[in-house]
Amino acid sequence: MTDLAAVKAALKNQAVETPSWAYGNSGTRFKVFAQQGVPRSPWEKLDDAAQVHAFTGVAPTVALHIPWDKVEDYAALAKHAEERGLKLGAINSNTFQDDDFKLGSVCHADAAVRRKAVAHLLECVDIMDATGSRDLKLWFADGTNYPGQDDIVARQERLGEALAEVYARLGDEQRMLLEYKFFEPAFYTTDVPDWGTAYAHCLKLGPKARVVVDTGHHAPGTNIEFIVALLLREGKLGGFDFNSRFYADDDLMVGAADPFQLFRIMYEVSRGGGFSADVAFMLDQCHNLEAKIPAIIRSVMNVQEATAKALLVDREALGAAQVAGDVLAANAVLMDAFNTDVRPLLREVREEMGLDADPIAAYARSGWAEKIVAERVGGQQAGWGA
Amino acid sequence: MTDLAAVKAALKNQAVETPSWAYGNSGTRFKVFAQQGVPRSPWEKLDDAAQVHAFTGVAPTVALHIPWDKVEDYAALAKHAEERGLKLGAINSNTFQDDDFKLGSVCHADAAVRRKAVAHLLECVDIMDATGSRDLKLWFADGTNYPGQDDIVARQERLGEALAEVYARLGDEQRMLLEYKFFEPAFYTTDVPDWGTAYAHCLKLGPKARVVVDTGHHAPGTNIEFIVALLLREGKLGGFDFNSRFYADDDLMVGAADPFQLFRIMYEVSRGGGFSADVAFMLDQCHNLEAKIPAIIRSVMNVQEATAKALLVDREALGAAQVAGDVLAANAVLMDAFNTDVRPLLREVREEMGLDADPIAAYARSGWAEKIVAERVGGQQAGWGA
Amino acid sequence: MTDLAAVKAALKNQAVETPSWAYGNSGTRFKVFAQQGVPRSPWEKLDDAAQVHAFTGVAPTVALHIPWDKVEDYAALAKHAEERGLKLGAINSNTFQDDDFKLGSVCHADAAVRRKAVAHLLECVDIMDATGSRDLKLWFADGTNYPGQDDIVARQERLGEALAEVYARLGDEQRMLLEYKFFEPAFYTTDVPDWGTAYAHCLKLGPKARVVVDTGHHAPGTNIEFIVALLLREGKLGGFDFNSRFYADDDLMVGAADPFQLFRIMYEVSRGGGFSADVAFMLDQCHNLEAKIPAIIRSVMNVQEATAKALLVDREALGAAQVAGDVLAANAVLMDAFNTDVRPLLREVREEMGLDADPIAAYARSGWAEKIVAERVGGQQAGWGA
Amino acid sequence: MTDLAAVKAALKNQAVETPSWAYGNSGTRFKVFAQQGVPRSPWEKLDDAAQVHAFTGVAPTVALHIPWDKVEDYAALAKHAEERGLKLGAINSNTFQDDDFKLGSVCHADAAVRRKAVAHLLECVDIMDATGSRDLKLWFADGTNYPGQDDIVARQERLGEALAEVYARLGDEQRMLLEYKFFEPAFYTTDVPDWGTAYAHCLKLGPKARVVVDTGHHAPGTNIEFIVALLLREGKLGGFDFNSRFYADDDLMVGAADPFQLFRIMYEVSRGGGFSADVAFMLDQCHNLEAKIPAIIRSVMNVQEATAKALLVDREALGAAQVAGDVLAANAVLMDAFNTDVRPLLREVREEMGLDADPIAAYARSGWAEKIVAERVGGQQAGWGA
Repeated sequence: MTDLAAVKAALKNQAVETPSWAYGNSGTRFKVFAQQGVPRSPWEKLDDAAQVHAFTGVAPTVALHIPWDKVEDYAALAKHAEERGLKLGAINSNTFQDDDFKLGSVCHADAAVRRKAVAHLLECVDIMDATGSRDLKLWFADGTNYPGQDDIVARQERLGEALAEVYARLGDEQRMLLEYKFFEPAFYTTDVPDWGTAYAHCLKLGPKARVVVDTGHHAPGTNIEFIVALLLREGKLGGFDFNSRFYADDDLMVGAADPFQLFRIMYEVSRGGGFSADVAFMLDQCHNLEAKIPAIIRSVMNVQEATAKALLVDREALGAAQVAGDVLAANAVLMDAFNTDVRPLLREVREEMGLDADPIAAYARSGWAEKIVAERVGGQQAGWGA
Repeated sequence: MTDLAAVKAALKNQAVETPSWAYGNSGTRFKVFAQQGVPRSPWEKLDDAAQVHAFTGVAPTVALHIPWDKVEDYAALAKHAEERGLKLGAINSNTFQDDDFKLGSVCHADAAVRRKAVAHLLECVDIMDATGSRDLKLWFADGTNYPGQDDIVARQERLGEALAEVYARLGDEQRMLLEYKFFEPAFYTTDVPDWGTAYAHCLKLGPKARVVVDTGHHAPGTNIEFIVALLLREGKLGGFDFNSRFYADDDLMVGAADPFQLFRIMYEVSRGGGFSADVAFMLDQCHNLEAKIPAIIRSVMNVQEATAKALLVDREALGAAQVAGDVLAANAVLMDAFNTDVRPLLREVREEMGLDADPIAAYARSGWAEKIVAERVGGQQAGWGA
Repeated sequence: MTDLAAVKAALKNQAVETPSWAYGNSGTRFKVFAQQGVPRSPWEKLDDAAQVHAFTGVAPTVALHIPWDKVEDYAALAKHAEERGLKLGAINSNTFQDDDFKLGSVCHADAAVRRKAVAHLLECVDIMDATGSRDLKLWFADGTNYPGQDDIVARQERLGEALAEVYARLGDEQRMLLEYKFFEPAFYTTDVPDWGTAYAHCLKLGPKARVVVDTGHHAPGTNIEFIVALLLREGKLGGFDFNSRFYADDDLMVGAADPFQLFRIMYEVSRGGGFSADVAFMLDQCHNLEAKIPAIIRSVMNVQEATAKALLVDREALGAAQVAGDVLAANAVLMDAFNTDVRPLLREVREEMGLDADPIAAYARSGWAEKIVAERVGGQQAGWGA
Repeated sequence: MTDLAAVKAALKNQAVETPSWAYGNSGTRFKVFAQQGVPRSPWEKLDDAAQVHAFTGVAPTVALHIPWDKVEDYAALAKHAEERGLKLGAINSNTFQDDDFKLGSVCHADAAVRRKAVAHLLECVDIMDATGSRDLKLWFADGTNYPGQDDIVARQERLGEALAEVYARLGDEQRMLLEYKFFEPAFYTTDVPDWGTAYAHCLKLGPKARVVVDTGHHAPGTNIEFIVALLLREGKLGGFDFNSRFYADDDLMVGAADPFQLFRIMYEVSRGGGFSADVAFMLDQCHNLEAKIPAIIRSVMNVQEATAKALLVDREALGAAQVAGDVLAANAVLMDAFNTDVRPLLREVREEMGLDADPIAAYARSGWAEKIVAERVGGQQAGWGA
């Protein structure tokens, strides 16, 4: 039997970090379709993120991306966030959009380019000091497009050196989260292509270094919940970049492509104690076609629904069936939780938190969408990849 | 025994069409790295394409992309090409970069958007009339990102209607080449995702409609040469968009990722009579990191090498081993051709054509690369996806 | 608004065909683990299938596999079925376990082998005459393991000839269902590897030939519901072989690996009129580890649940959101149905059908499992691949 | 410039271990096609392996599989090998064909089953003592077919314990090689699914534990040479199980499906010093359709050809192009080696070794194939999975 009060308490305590860049324009290599009302500054991104938190109650922090969210005064930005009920979250580095990084950043053959990349990473730690952020999230676009283009091993050496230098700069409460990605934008090798590579580097760096699992960054067929379970067991799961995919790194709304997979991941988080450990639950999505704020609200709700189902798994019954070797019964216990409609429960949770039971409808009624379209005229819309 | 004189003759007659857009800048959704000396107009693209033909002798036509290559006077453009030893090739439509096409073009739910898309396609046929191009190459980015976003069947109906309207406009000597693609930029459904869908539409349209095989547009593991063999058997192979890939639609230089696959494809072309049928051999690549003109020269050479190996297959010995059910012997016949170093043969072929035996070195010595860097200053560099 | 009475009626009319071979032992190339109580004859397989129908009410037919289910007297077998409330369903051919078929059956280079294969297929039609079965289901293991091993095009010619000969033998009410498979047991080419190939053959054969979609027979990432929608639109969807997979042709219980995908498939069936057309809904699974009869009951229930959800989709609201181009709203309509817990509805449906609301529990209480373990001692257990 | 004498010396020193089981029958889950003349005992397998070594000169050791190759007197078996110019190689364990291992072996929930599995592994070390084998190669079929079937983390704990117990038993000169596999025979989780998992266990175990790379055991698109380079850098590459694949774990002849990939792997071995380190180069293939001994000879030759090409890479020129960031030039250096026809060089190497230049033809002339067909009549043919 599951303890419903405990489930509700866990759901109220949940925290999903939304990424500043998801509020801006995004697209594919073919076209970025601009939307009306999109933020034109980090300040406006926080204004939008505050809407997501206001209606869901579980999105209290916002990840920043440097240099996209570079401002003169980070204390002022943090204050702007706080006034809207938010805190600044992970700092995400960018070593893929400077012309010097065409053939790599921290893995580049040229030491001068590597120094430039490391300098950027160190600047990110400076910003963390200013914002009070705990996590430096590192994703490297480094890799090669053609066999022979560069030396795989030499690039690992360079990567290791750069990470060590940045790691040494971290404060006592700061962490480095290392992300891996199967491919893209590099098409032959990627310098951190899988969890094993990220894990090996984190092991060498020390306890402040942990692996980030982006749910869209795996080879077809990869069992992501297995990786999550392993990293939790090793104390090396730093966090998630949630999104969903049918093909490659599609960056669709989390839970949209395979809600059962998301549930299985959240079950392993639950089973491995991930909700009480220092695991960061972040979104990393691109809302190319759909309206951005409601898409992010929907994504947060999808995480909530998967979490609720995971928490409803009858762990005792599951364990008993597993020990008995009853394949069908064990599977049935898990499926029973997945097949439960948890939306009524979540409506209750929201009402107990003083929120509207239906965040999507409440946001639609709020007039915010119309307001930003009307007010955010002129200026340069925020966008990534641009 | 293979007839070496016939092989040489076939190699001299080979024609690989290069795409105007490969001479311009390209990139991923993360970044387009600009290169120096890149063309700023269709005229300059033809100038570059002429270099590729001058040094390889087998790249006599250039595919255009509308509207990227839109000019006032297509007769003048055709003349510009002819003066450089070139002809204008296939006309490629673009129904993915107008803001109206965000949710589709010919498959869009809104009839007004569909009319706009069809109008563009009809304009492309007008341009074909002006340029004397035989082929209208259609690739549709149409699709959806989320389950439920649109009605799969309704989109097929709309697609069929649009294709029929354009087909009816084709002249007697003109053809419609329909391309399929597994995914991207759409991430849930693509409206022409596989050869079967393209084939079904082409069958209904009639003999002027044929399927284009882009070697990067398949699901992982797909046996492309099988598709090529089938389409040739059905008389429905219109042509190739050559490139290569390790992961998704990476658009790397053809033959760079899996030269054995390219050889197998060319073998099926040879076996199915594709060199003498109306099959268009086109490149469709993105040279994001590497220098563009030599990358295209290399790509043409890669097609030549695969073709030479395919032509060297001892068809008689192969057939005998196949009929005998001798698996190892049959495989060995094929591998024997693949393992042959055909570069000396191709050097001979080039010298007999009055060309330098080494196109890459000859181009490097020509000074063209330095010249375009020096001269093409200012203006707007050509780029796709931008 | 959905019409609940109509949904219930549809659920009561649903028919899922179970395969005789799923009641026998199965395994991987590494090991077949035998289970106690497994049938030792076609007669005992029908006894087990009758249990599945008795407890679910929607599994009234049983597919046979020849020669695994060969008997002297098919009329007697049909009577045995009828006495248990069943009918005999599709006849499945086997052209992959005779030593002569090592390099292929209907595609073999040797005409004598092809004649043997065709003779077997014709014998299957004879059996259909005797059993009253409507459908001849053809799956060919034909293919090659190595490039060059055989001629791709010649094999297509042979395939086409064999199919034509068998097609000509079909009675007025009989159909040929042609199955495709991405790979396995052939590892380089498969002679019917995708829906396009099957469709092309069926088109040439005529209206009695249709394509079968086995949900485990696709390349990674393939959008199966798209194929289903297309085939229904063309009137060429003959039926399903349901199962589920994480990797290759895993043959797990349908709905076990990706219940959302199964729902999307059933939605396209519903949207395309597939429930009222002549589409055969069949299971094709291997219960290697789990108890077979309850696994099949669970599978039937999974199909029911996906069907119920698909029928609950608010088609009107969906269409309105689609036409409006409201991506989030359209997706939400679909997800609303998927997120609904339809188990209470199905319990109601069962009770209205005079069945126990919980088929799994009812079967467990029935004592059948214990009975067959006790009684089926000695003899040769049925198994496929053996 | 490459030193041709050094290349030849390296090729003469190369050692490829052939697996005893590849000489026996194998197949897929659908059918094992028996071949004439197949060995009926470990002794006869060694007789066949001796032929491969006699004609190639570089296959001096034979891997055993326990219990398939269980004999009363391992000293006698070793002597039998020595008399034929062979040594016994790695001992491969089998924890997947006993009925008790249906739900796992070392990861099974039941401690008694785990004890049985560990006892088998310890017995394998006993056999290593008797045969003088250095390597214990461990591949576990352990995993689950359904979500919830067992506890992922608990299984890792059990695995770790079992490995530690076996590791402690190893002699000073003995090693444990841990193999990973993406999937099959388990279809939801596999307990050692990727190199990261194997690496993490080996790290904990100690220096005698190393990872084995089976070239067929990866997700689609995985860059295997990257893994090889990383493991070599970490001193954790224990060896290879060579084979090739188009789809899953197809176990085709190495180099048959993607000779360019094999070359890239061998290049990373060469670049990382793998030829002089303690890396075991083993075959692990299934010759389902083709004649077994010549298939293994061909496989050894394929490894030789890839090695020769890898050794011919102009490392100096490559390094210069890489440091210069010249993508095309660096790629061209690598491709130049790959495009070289190394068969004349290998013929020379063989003649200098006193061998026939053409091992396939020499074997065919030897009469061995006819002899074993004539003599090996009656008895039980060896086969795996049976």
